[in-house]
Amino acid sequence: MSSPLTLAPWLTRYHRRDFLSDLLAGLTVAVMLVPQGMAYAMLAGMPPVAGLYASTLPLVAYALLGSSRALAVGPVAIVSLLTLAGVAPLAEPGSTDFIALAGILALMVGGLQLALGLLRGGVLVAFLSHAVVSGFTSAAALVIALSQVHHLLGFSLAAKDPVPVLLEAFQRLGEVHSTTLLLGLSSLILLLAGRRWSPRVPMPLVVVVLGTLTVALAGLDQAGVKIVGAVPAGLPRPSLPQAPSEAVWALFPTALTIAFIGFLESIAVARSLAAREAERVDADRELVGLGLSNLVAGFLAAFPVTGGFSRSAVNYQAGARSGLASVVTAILVMVTLLALTPLFYHLPQAILAALVVAAVVGLVDLREPLRLWRVRRADALSLGVTFLATFLLGVEPGILVGVAFSLAIFLWRSAFPHVAVMGRLADSEGSGVCGVWRNVLRHPQARPHPRLVVVRPDASLYFANATWLRDVVERVLAEREEVRGLVIDLSAVNDVDAVALESLEELMHELDLQGLEVHLAAMKGPVGDVAARAGWRERYADRAYHLTLDRAVAAAEAALVRREATREA
Amino acid sequence: MSSPLTLAPWLTRYHRRDFLSDLLAGLTVAVMLVPQGMAYAMLAGMPPVAGLYASTLPLVAYALLGSSRALAVGPVAIVSLLTLAGVAPLAEPGSTDFIALAGILALMVGGLQLALGLLRGGVLVAFLSHAVVSGFTSAAALVIALSQVHHLLGFSLAAKDPVPVLLEAFQRLGEVHSTTLLLGLSSLILLLAGRRWSPRVPMPLVVVVLGTLTVALAGLDQAGVKIVGAVPAGLPRPSLPQAPSEAVWALFPTALTIAFIGFLESIAVARSLAAREAERVDADRELVGLGLSNLVAGFLAAFPVTGGFSRSAVNYQAGARSGLASVVTAILVMVTLLALTPLFYHLPQAILAALVVAAVVGLVDLREPLRLWRVRRADALSLGVTFLATFLLGVEPGILVGVAFSLAIFLWRSAFPHVAVMGRLADSEGSGVCGVWRNVLRHPQARPHPRLVVVRPDASLYFANATWLRDVVERVLAEREEVRGLVIDLSAVNDVDAVALESLEELMHELDLQGLEVHLAAMKGPVGDVAARAGWRERYADRAYHLTLDRAVAAAEAALVRREATREA
Repeated sequence: MSSPLTLAPWLTRYHRRDFLSDLLAGLTVAVMLVPQGMAYAMLAGMPPVAGLYASTLPLVAYALLGSSRALAVGPVAIVSLLTLAGVAPLAEPGSTDFIALAGILALMVGGLQLALGLLRGGVLVAFLSHAVVSGFTSAAALVIALSQVHHLLGFSLAAKDPVPVLLEAFQRLGEVHSTTLLLGLSSLILLLAGRRWSPRVPMPLVVVVLGTLTVALAGLDQAGVKIVGAVPAGLPRPSLPQAPSEAVWALFPTALTIAFIGFLESIAVARSLAAREAERVDADRELVGLGLSNLVAGFLAAFPVTGGFSRSAVNYQAGARSGLASVVTAILVMVTLLALTPLFYHLPQAILAALVVAAVVGLVDLREPLRLWRVRRADALSLGVTFLATFLLGVEPGILVGVAFSLAIFLWRSAFPHVAVMGRLADSEGSGVCGVWRNVLRHPQARPHPRLVVVRPDASLYFANATWLRDVVERVLAEREEVRGLVIDLSAVNDVDAVALESLEELMHELDLQGLEVHLAAMKGPVGDVAARAGWRERYADRAYHLTLDRAVAAAEAALVRREATREA
Repeated sequence: MSSPLTLAPWLTRYHRRDFLSDLLAGLTVAVMLVPQGMAYAMLAGMPPVAGLYASTLPLVAYALLGSSRALAVGPVAIVSLLTLAGVAPLAEPGSTDFIALAGILALMVGGLQLALGLLRGGVLVAFLSHAVVSGFTSAAALVIALSQVHHLLGFSLAAKDPVPVLLEAFQRLGEVHSTTLLLGLSSLILLLAGRRWSPRVPMPLVVVVLGTLTVALAGLDQAGVKIVGAVPAGLPRPSLPQAPSEAVWALFPTALTIAFIGFLESIAVARSLAAREAERVDADRELVGLGLSNLVAGFLAAFPVTGGFSRSAVNYQAGARSGLASVVTAILVMVTLLALTPLFYHLPQAILAALVVAAVVGLVDLREPLRLWRVRRADALSLGVTFLATFLLGVEPGILVGVAFSLAIFLWRSAFPHVAVMGRLADSEGSGVCGVWRNVLRHPQARPHPRLVVVRPDASLYFANATWLRDVVERVLAEREEVRGLVIDLSAVNDVDAVALESLEELMHELDLQGLEVHLAAMKGPVGDVAARAGWRERYADRAYHLTLDRAVAAAEAALVRREATREA
């Protein structure tokens, strides 16, 4: 793996023949990014031009440090929604304060991602279960779509949260501005149909051009269709956004959420693109690239960015061979800022809303919950809980609830693990060296030992399941009074902590006092290491170190025979 | 196990010969409980008489419903400290409001414990690691001892938290009230020496009687020794304590903490006593008993109680055979309340402080951290983090930090598990049916297969380690270019979730594309169930269901031979 700080590794081995490919891909993405950038800016509560600012140098920053060749960085729907959700409680969307805070937020996200990347913290993302991400994404997509409803209907809503928005929109259907709705809906249909039947046509551009011309020529803005209006021309001026320090603290949870969710979205796209080229993505380098990209966005009065799914796919399919494609995109957006902003004056907001809605429709995933429900219901439950929490409580609480719930399910299963009662398969009897032992409940032909209970705890042992194991063993022993000993098969115990080890010692001691023979078999290396440090080599040399279950059972049988001989003598 | 609601199971099989034993034990505990009750009340910020109230009917309630025969319920040090820590932010200790809130707190603790017990929620306590409890107890004991320093020095301190208390006490050593200090220290020495060298002498009683007589006869209260003063005579009047509902919400975290910590202390004592009688304690019945006991305490203007270690030991050693011993204790405390309270007028507060300090000295456990450090450092770290958090941040944050930290360690280890690369032991070669495979790093004589990589992930697979497994496998494969296939030994995989299963499918798919033979062996029942629901029986019938590693390796070898034959033909 390359160091996270090597500059543009694609540059050193650049082939001239890739240049035309990159140029075309960069152009294709730019045509898509300009309207999407403005639309996502509106979703984030920012002026449309901020979406263009976010689509300039941040792309170049990623191209220099990121690890994926075809990843298209820029404003994306879910990160824009998270930005709105985090900043709106602190300032009025669209206000100067809001813009400054969104910039600060981008700086914080960038700093966090950069630090995580340099500290090799990309592994942390493993704790976001795919079930949680799926539930979160579906709910966020619905929240985003609902947030655009008022742009499509052409009147403002008092409600902000998804359910009240739905109710209010329904009650006030009579106030709909029909021209706006017509513009929005026809754009939406064109966008969805175009994606399905003619994916080669740059439909966002077509819709934007047609819509803008219609409004301009028919003077629809005079008839109440809300338009983007004047978009300031020129490149963004780099500056450090200013905000009171309390606001910075208040933004911290949002920054952390965006740092992780943005990274996760980006790395998922980068990995799926890399897999097609049989390449690998370095998660930490990816974090560094995104981190720098967000830091640059923060200095340009923009808002947090990340690698997006749809534009990256377009970039890849259009033939992007390297980060140069993104540099081309950035240059074209800058040209747009310098020369083309007057063209957006008559662009109706309803069309930007349609762009957002069209982009998020595909994020609602109905197949995953069904698959999880079939395979393991607990995982479908994680998805469902995350979905509901995100939809009803908001995006940040939603993701938190999801992570906590999915970890709690894992902890719960670990704390009350399966403990198999074992028997020897009849056909392996006699061949004393390698008898096959199996769970008697699953293999009726496996015969329990007549005088020994043989159990196999199916879990790593740690503080939370130590007592459970003792309870189960005691219950099994209580059920079979004729039993004179216990053999514990440790082959499924991958790890043990000091608390569980002591609990095992207590169990052995307790059963010793009751006159039972206790032997342990098939202890693994890592468990043996912990046991050795607790002095087991000396204390339990004769009964804790049987290599196989057969040998442990043989040793227990021999000990019982010796005992009986002593008793008779 | 009996239902949690059977009344006093000891009563139905009561032997007349046990009566004298119970009587003596009840008397012995009462002699210890009266001064301790007042001392712990002072620690909890309550008037001394509340400690006596808490030592009456709550004991009878436990005797009727609890499951342990010799457990002595009543005020204990750590629960008293938790009470003070929880209520002090809401009301001035000793005030009428404080007393009402402490009563409410006891009702809440009782309600929570009762509900947990009836819902069979006693298992939840498993998530409190013994390492965390040990660190918490040691730190709480130090906090308690420091909270009594001002009673021993004879002047009030402005500081409240442990470290500032130490600093202030040290700076103001010149203001010490020497008579008070002398009384306190000599009592402390007597108590500690008595426990060590003459455990049969009821030293708390001796110290209280000697101290009270000294103060009364020498008129030391006139000389500035602070005394208990008038203790109201008579039994407590049952009533429902009143408090605003915000206060109830504010007390909720404290109530939850006490419900768990109190239960944990109690069940540990009950279990150790039961083990000596070869009996078992039912955790849920224990919760119901403690819950009722706390509900009663709440109605008696008292504060939360639980089963205490030292008095239970005394009760057991004095011969307690049943809950009747506790009933005797309660009656004697009630007699004290009715007739003997005037005797406590001259009891110096310094002696109560000495009783508290003497009781908690033994709670500081230095051996456990050393043992854990030797056996597994991560567990010692859990203990250390809990200790520091409890000492520096307070008792409630301390326990929370400890639980979170200990679970995080478990999750961390689960997320990046050990993956063993396996080889066949030389002496088992040839005997194809039962070759012994071992980790090549631990068994140098185990020989890796020349054309196959054989790995054994040592963990249950779930979302957080699914990517890790893929990374490790890809790394191992990249290191050995001559390899033509992969065999995954699933014998250590106790459980799998839908996310990890899909990740495994993706890995197989990816390696298939690279032209490698992939086989899985020794899948366990619970894993097989999940895989079956994902359609593995149909999709991977020929390669995921090998019973042993040998069979999987043989199948992979055969497939490679077939491939080569096809290629040559």
